Amino acid sequence: MTQTEHTPAPNPSAPVDGWHWEDFTVGMQMSFGPSPVGREEVIRFAKDFDPQPFHLSEEAGKASLFGGLAASGWHTAGIVMRLMCDGFILNSSSLGSPGLDSLKWLKPVLVGDELRARMTVLATRPMNSKPKVGLVQTRWEAVNQRDEVVMLIESWAMFGRRHPGYPMQL
Amino acid sequence: MTQTEHTPAPNPSAPVDGWHWEDFTVGMQMSFGPSPVGREEVIRFAKDFDPQPFHLSEEAGKASLFGGLAASGWHTAGIVMRLMCDGFILNSSSLGSPGLDSLKWLKPVLVGDELRARMTVLATRPMNSKPKVGLVQTRWEAVNQRDEVVMLIESWAMFGRRHPGYPMQL
Repeated sequence: MTQTEHTPAPNPSAPVDGWHWEDFTVGMQMSFGPSPVGREEVIRFAKDFDPQPFHLSEEAGKASLFGGLAASGWHTAGIVMRLMCDGFILNSSSLGSPGLDSLKWLKPVLVGDELRARMTVLATRPMNSKPKVGLVQTRWEAVNQRDEVVMLIESWAMFGRRHPGYPMQL
Repeated sequence: MTQTEHTPAPNPSAPVDGWHWEDFTVGMQMSFGPSPVGREEVIRFAKDFDPQPFHLSEEAGKASLFGGLAASGWHTAGIVMRLMCDGFILNSSSLGSPGLDSLKWLKPVLVGDELRARMTVLATRPMNSKPKVGLVQTRWEAVNQRDEVVMLIESWAMFGRRHPGYPMQL
C-alpha cells in the first residue's frame, strides 16, 4: 500500500458562517481522525455502560469472538461521534438527530487500534413541519489502521437552514 | 393513571445456568430500571463524545429544540445498554452484537428524567456459520417517568447455544 492510497481527499472548506443545511450536497465526503483507542478509556466506558467481560479484560477479550480487549460497540459509536463533532458538527447549525437507519458493527475494535471516520452525504430534504430546518442523511464509516471498515452507520441529522423555506416562520 | 398501569409484568426467571439462545422466545418481554439521568453524567458524557452546546448547559439546552439540558442520544443508548447488562446480559452467554436495524430518538431525554427499559424478543434464528451461536432480534424501548417512549431500537445480538446445532463443533 502506498502513502497515496492512505491520503484522503481534502475536506471541503467550512463556510464562513458555519455548515448549514444548504451546504450538504449528495456525494460530498469528509474524513476525520485518527483517534487512538486507549485501554483506560475502553475499560472506563465499559464499566459505565457495557460491563461485559470481553470489554473489561485482555483475558476475557482473547477468549471471546473479538480475540482481544475490545471496545464496546457503543464506545466505538461515541468515538466516531466525537470525530464528527470536532470535524464539522460543532461548526454547524446542528439541531440533533431523529435517529439511525442502520448501524453495523463489522469488525472488533481492539485496544491499540486507531479509528478514522469517513462521512458521505446520501440525501438531503427540507423538513416539512419546520421551515427553518432541513434533514441530511449520511453514511458514517469507521475505519481502522488497516483500512478495514469496522462500523457502518446510516444516520439522519437536522440542520438549521441558512434560507428558511416557505412558509416562513420568523 | 393508576399504580397498576405502571407495574410491569414480572420478568421471566433466569435459568440456573444463565440466559442462553434457547431461552429467548418470540414475544418474551423483560423490563429494567429505572435509572436516573444525572446532570454531571450528562455533561461528562457530552464532553467526552458529543460536546454540542445543548448537551453541555441548561441555557443552550433551553434555546434548542430539546427545551432543556438534554442527554446525548448516544448517552441514552449507553444508559439503556447498562440496564440491559444488569438486567440479563451479564447473566447470559452473550457474544456481542452485529448491529442495529434501526434506532429512533423520539423525544428529548432531559436532566432529572428517569429511564426504564423494555425489551421484547422479535425473532430468533441459529447462526448458520457458527453452530454454537444463535441470533436474537429484540426491540428496546426506553421509557421516561411519564411513560413516553423516548428511544426505540431494533437490535440483533449473538448468544451461545446450550445445545449447539448441527454440524456439531465441540
